[in-house]
Amino acid sequence: MPNPTAAMLVIGDEILSGRTRDANMHFLAGELTKHGIMLKEVRIVSDDRQAIIDAVNALRAAHDTVFTSGGIGPTHDDITAEAIAAAFGVPIGIRDDARALLAAHYARTGQEFNAARQRMARIPDGATLIDNPISVAPGFTLGNVHVMAGVPNIFQAMVASVMPTLTGGAPLLSQTLRINRGEGEIATPLSDLAEAFPDLSFGSYPFVRDGAYGANIVIRGHDAARIDSAATRLAAHFPGDTA
Amino acid sequence: MPNPTAAMLVIGDEILSGRTRDANMHFLAGELTKHGIMLKEVRIVSDDRQAIIDAVNALRAAHDTVFTSGGIGPTHDDITAEAIAAAFGVPIGIRDDARALLAAHYARTGQEFNAARQRMARIPDGATLIDNPISVAPGFTLGNVHVMAGVPNIFQAMVASVMPTLTGGAPLLSQTLRINRGEGEIATPLSDLAEAFPDLSFGSYPFVRDGAYGANIVIRGHDAARIDSAATRLAAHFPGDTA
Repeated sequence: MPNPTAAMLVIGDEILSGRTRDANMHFLAGELTKHGIMLKEVRIVSDDRQAIIDAVNALRAAHDTVFTSGGIGPTHDDITAEAIAAAFGVPIGIRDDARALLAAHYARTGQEFNAARQRMARIPDGATLIDNPISVAPGFTLGNVHVMAGVPNIFQAMVASVMPTLTGGAPLLSQTLRINRGEGEIATPLSDLAEAFPDLSFGSYPFVRDGAYGANIVIRGHDAARIDSAATRLAAHFPGDTA
Repeated sequence: MPNPTAAMLVIGDEILSGRTRDANMHFLAGELTKHGIMLKEVRIVSDDRQAIIDAVNALRAAHDTVFTSGGIGPTHDDITAEAIAAAFGVPIGIRDDARALLAAHYARTGQEFNAARQRMARIPDGATLIDNPISVAPGFTLGNVHVMAGVPNIFQAMVASVMPTLTGGAPLLSQTLRINRGEGEIATPLSDLAEAFPDLSFGSYPFVRDGAYGANIVIRGHDAARIDSAATRLAAHFPGDTA
């Protein structure tokens, strides 16, 4: 059975302006790989309603699961929940259970539960809440789309809540062979190997270190013995130049 | 005049699997912002021909300029040049000037100019070459699409070659105000400010540090005096809590 596929939509002007480096995508990619779910596409769009709607509709049609990060806070530029509701064509309003969670939290911490904070209880009709153990304001799941916060530690906690609800696949195993030769010398044996092992995938990721060329060859598949066998065969082409 | 827009397409299984953290997007985002070009969308797709074709066609239709990174090396998984040619509906073949550059380079370094390395001279018809001062194998520009290497130092050198050829916009200035209050308390004054300064954009990027909530408010626009004035007005709402 093929592995389930996933996509991610990052809503973030701050990443597109170069101000911030994304951390959530890298974290989610690693978690999905562990669960045998293949992250096939990531899109990063700005805080623009139509851009969010178009991207989420394209991604949810093409993949088993979609994760979004960012834009669910209390400020005027937090428009993700409204855009997701519009993408699904469902109404959105303040939901009692979400409001109750937030009201209790602000009562406990002695902060005002003002209008801006009440916006965080706006949840599209038909969604289920995603627990936020850090700052309470929930994420939500609508259809196959999981809508989560952009702050990294909250995003990570939400991923931890969602992951057990997903159907994973056979774990994807991988082995990396570092070869201290230019990719141009590795290409032909690697291509032959890819033909001989059609059940595995072979990626070549070149690097330059201290002025010398090399490449990390990543072999992926479901069968550890097959991966070992391919790695051994490739290493034999480059005696003394692998690690 | 509105600022020109750009998009980026990253071709990279290694980023989607969580093995590598993207560096090129962050670099390009910063360079574009300096030149007054707005990066509006980034897509990351796997080494899949149709995924590359669909993404590049969507992005080049929607934005003034598109940058791609990755997949132009000599190995079997380097399919970007072919996919770009297919997206534009033009033929691709080994081009004499690109082959001559590579042949001279490998003659100089005493390495074999083998069939795999000759693949790097495959350039779509009608493209112009992008200089690669590091490892010679060129990138290329076809229409409004700049196709560049994924290895970060080569990517950066290619960006440096391309940037002076682009029409920039008025530089986008920004100022960041750090407010040590929860976003929920900042939201209303910030929303009022956004209404009072329709020529500026206001982003709120929350953080949690040592258990305390805060937000970086980024104010962007073309007029430094207007940005100063908005920042001063916002800071006045939070005496003692800004930096």
